[in-house]
Amino acid sequence: MEQTLVPSVSFETSPAQYQHWKLTFDGPVATLAMDVREDGGLRPNDYKLKLNSYDLGVDIELADALQRLRFEHPEVHTVVLTSLKPRIFCAGANIFMLGSSSHGFKVNFCKFTNETRLGMEDMSATSGIKFLAAINGICAGGGYELALACDEIYLVDDGNASVGLPETPLLGVLPGTGGLTRVVDKRKVRRDLADDFSTLSEGVRGKRAVQGRFVDATFPTSQFKDAVAKRAQELAAMSDRPSSGPGITLGPLNPAVSGDTIQYKYVTGVIDRAKRLCELTVSAPGHPEGLPPHVEIPTTPEEFLKAGDQSWAVRAFREFDDAILRLRLNEPEIGTVVLRAAGDPKAVLAVDAALHAHRSHWLVREITGLIRRTLKRLDLTSRSLCALIEPGNAFAGTLVELALAADRAYMLDHPDDDNTIQLSVMNGGAYPMSNGLTRLQVRFLGEPDTVGKVLAHDGPYTAAEALEAGLVFSAPDDIDWDDEVRMALEARAAFSPDALTGMEANLRFAGPETMETKIFGRLTAWQNWIFQRPNAVGERGALMTYGREGRPTFDWKRT
Amino acid sequence: MEQTLVPSVSFETSPAQYQHWKLTFDGPVATLAMDVREDGGLRPNDYKLKLNSYDLGVDIELADALQRLRFEHPEVHTVVLTSLKPRIFCAGANIFMLGSSSHGFKVNFCKFTNETRLGMEDMSATSGIKFLAAINGICAGGGYELALACDEIYLVDDGNASVGLPETPLLGVLPGTGGLTRVVDKRKVRRDLADDFSTLSEGVRGKRAVQGRFVDATFPTSQFKDAVAKRAQELAAMSDRPSSGPGITLGPLNPAVSGDTIQYKYVTGVIDRAKRLCELTVSAPGHPEGLPPHVEIPTTPEEFLKAGDQSWAVRAFREFDDAILRLRLNEPEIGTVVLRAAGDPKAVLAVDAALHAHRSHWLVREITGLIRRTLKRLDLTSRSLCALIEPGNAFAGTLVELALAADRAYMLDHPDDDNTIQLSVMNGGAYPMSNGLTRLQVRFLGEPDTVGKVLAHDGPYTAAEALEAGLVFSAPDDIDWDDEVRMALEARAAFSPDALTGMEANLRFAGPETMETKIFGRLTAWQNWIFQRPNAVGERGALMTYGREGRPTFDWKRT
Repeated sequence: MEQTLVPSVSFETSPAQYQHWKLTFDGPVATLAMDVREDGGLRPNDYKLKLNSYDLGVDIELADALQRLRFEHPEVHTVVLTSLKPRIFCAGANIFMLGSSSHGFKVNFCKFTNETRLGMEDMSATSGIKFLAAINGICAGGGYELALACDEIYLVDDGNASVGLPETPLLGVLPGTGGLTRVVDKRKVRRDLADDFSTLSEGVRGKRAVQGRFVDATFPTSQFKDAVAKRAQELAAMSDRPSSGPGITLGPLNPAVSGDTIQYKYVTGVIDRAKRLCELTVSAPGHPEGLPPHVEIPTTPEEFLKAGDQSWAVRAFREFDDAILRLRLNEPEIGTVVLRAAGDPKAVLAVDAALHAHRSHWLVREITGLIRRTLKRLDLTSRSLCALIEPGNAFAGTLVELALAADRAYMLDHPDDDNTIQLSVMNGGAYPMSNGLTRLQVRFLGEPDTVGKVLAHDGPYTAAEALEAGLVFSAPDDIDWDDEVRMALEARAAFSPDALTGMEANLRFAGPETMETKIFGRLTAWQNWIFQRPNAVGERGALMTYGREGRPTFDWKRT
Repeated sequence: MEQTLVPSVSFETSPAQYQHWKLTFDGPVATLAMDVREDGGLRPNDYKLKLNSYDLGVDIELADALQRLRFEHPEVHTVVLTSLKPRIFCAGANIFMLGSSSHGFKVNFCKFTNETRLGMEDMSATSGIKFLAAINGICAGGGYELALACDEIYLVDDGNASVGLPETPLLGVLPGTGGLTRVVDKRKVRRDLADDFSTLSEGVRGKRAVQGRFVDATFPTSQFKDAVAKRAQELAAMSDRPSSGPGITLGPLNPAVSGDTIQYKYVTGVIDRAKRLCELTVSAPGHPEGLPPHVEIPTTPEEFLKAGDQSWAVRAFREFDDAILRLRLNEPEIGTVVLRAAGDPKAVLAVDAALHAHRSHWLVREITGLIRRTLKRLDLTSRSLCALIEPGNAFAGTLVELALAADRAYMLDHPDDDNTIQLSVMNGGAYPMSNGLTRLQVRFLGEPDTVGKVLAHDGPYTAAEALEAGLVFSAPDDIDWDDEVRMALEARAAFSPDALTGMEANLRFAGPETMETKIFGRLTAWQNWIFQRPNAVGERGALMTYGREGRPTFDWKRT
């Protein structure tokens, strides 16, 4: 199974290219309707996307649509999720796709799917965009997990439409893209009702779904459309988004890929296959092609709007996000990411000042949100992360978050060349991690006073000062630098990749847990365990026999 | 690997039988010294317990010693954990034992070990007994995890003694019995320092260990013993335990095992192998052998002391705990536990009244603690739990917790026979789950007002009332009862045992997370995943090649 070839995945798309979703607009309400093309899967010869089942490609379009709603459609305040297929809302992740995918692909597919759905909840919490699932057919497994990510769930009562999590009874795996967690933690369904629900292969319909808290309301077919439209308007009225546009258009990133180098405008990734390492460098504003300063670093909301997707903050983090996603899916053997920030740190601090000054403007709020989600994506990337801070670095403000996200940061203490880092107000709360704390708060969990102290520090930190303050792991001098860094990277590359994945997943998220961390920690970890078990993925495992002849054969031992 | 025969494990022992620990007393300070007998493993032909490495048998003795300290030695206020072996404190779990154990055994071994160590923290938090690790030699992996479970860690500075978590570099698995979680969440070690520490095969010594927060203090050999003794006395002085005994002696349980039945005094377990089910019945006080009431149900601290291990609350829950442990380790194919409570509910309520009235007495506090930990053990047991409430039941007060711990409770709504359940004050806070909430609070997370309402309800609930109040899952009448229960149990038995394990682990613990749930949810789930991976347990996996010729061979793909 590990050998299945997955074509290199691109995460860029646009509405004109969508195969599986129709995005339509009606004033403050957008409708995102699922209409999955059966032969439009990423590996069309291996599986058909029947019954609105989905694969990674379907989810990439969804993620793209969400991003465009955020940035291109400020007038949208509510998104209605529904289906264009008769009698079926969504059958969940495609089982034949899962069954024929490698373990690593399954895990990364689920992670991306989870991130996209948490992104919907992030929109509800921070963007002023509410989600209403209008379930007009059978809604099972991942389909219901998608509905669970919405603020409210309406279900048509037509004797056919249902919601259900049939993974345990039918497939021997979990409703693992947030399903179990959202049922008991978000919707607070009583645990025995959740237990029953999660063992029904047929799901529940109508009033029973309302009584169990699985949906918020149900309506007969004749009233359903109106009820959804009415509620969508009510939700829209609660928004603090602008009542009209314009937004900014997100153009293609079009990185140049050549050999083992991927070159975006501000982000460069270079893979060293022998070392199983990727050097990922983010450049500060100051592009040699010479964009005018007010485009790279807008200082007013109007300038941000005018700069569109060309401002550094938008462009650099869209690029970084894309690079991380490609790395996850397309380069499984690259175990370590070396993070660098290059260029003028003052330019980054200027961006931060503008983001902070105009943080209540809808577009600036979205840009900060993009950076926040991208940094979370980095936290959740199961690769070892090592920041290298050398003279000429641009680790300032927002870019310091890359160093704080790293498992370790090394900073060269050079006797001659200046080498500093500098925090900004943006390190104080703009980019919380999945657990709700800032990276500085997590870092200094054992000495909480230090957070305020380093934020109050005036000006840059030298390497010695940064080490003393606890901001970096090590600060070797120029004599030791090469050897120390080389040895650390070599040692890392020699460890079991699985042990590193588990270790990093445990060490990165000290402190409180949230629904989000529960999904990525507890639920995902159990699902990954199950995704290895013969009872799921063995020749006679439930995931492999589904839809084929014969019943699965289980080893009955519990653990 | 799955085929390795594990001899049936008994969890009963006593100091006279200890092979691996020496328990000595000096006023308020007890010393628990590790001196593992190399040939004293549970499977002595498969591995030698060198360098104070441990297997399940060593941990069973530790758990027994802790239990006896709680009950038999009220005068003990501090426990010093140390080693009698020269230059070695503890090398951690025995690798050859792990390598030659089935997946299920490894998982259950780690779970028991975690429970034992959390039990130490429970003693510190609730019993007035503090733990001081006196590390007088090399302390690695599980050895350091044991130290982490102590309140304070002292390390001798002799150029040899060290603390370390070498699992990732040496074995390709995690420091999974709490290690990673306790380093960043309990000791709040900075994550990059924790990352570095967890990749060092040699650990850290002396002042470096103090600087990283890995130990609390270090002393040269000449001062170590005195410093430990002094601090042990200081910790002891903080205790609210009595300054002198007597305690109560915990005699052997000596259950009668005959065929597929295990018969304790108050607990009976009957296995139905065809149904892969165990019926576990707890009987209320009122033993036919006719103990006087003040022994079964003491009503004053003096009576509790006099009744010793014969009072129902002590005896029944020691038995239940033992039964659950045997089931976990010795009966992996038994997927469902049917929980019943039989006898006079008023007798249980009388016990509850006494436990509540004297809750500040040290012994009563310990008894409540025993019940609390046993119920947590039930929550954490990866078997489907189904409570059946029928006429003649004793589901009242403390015993209702069994029904609340169950994934589902069925209650017979009989037209003629009385069938009721009744809550007591003990359901209101005496037995929090690992997540810090009571079972009622978790159950009613979505309607928190209901908790107070059901606790205030005067008298028993009929089946219809219990269903209406949300206390039970279903209340079929006598016509439907047999079929409904049979079908539910049959359906359960047909599901993938792994999917059930993952599902239950996610649905049972809604609400907040604590260090304890992080250990069992996040850390354990990742460790179990790794325990399946070829990079650990494959023929060339790191766990299998350790201590043998040659290096492990890894599949470098990250997930």
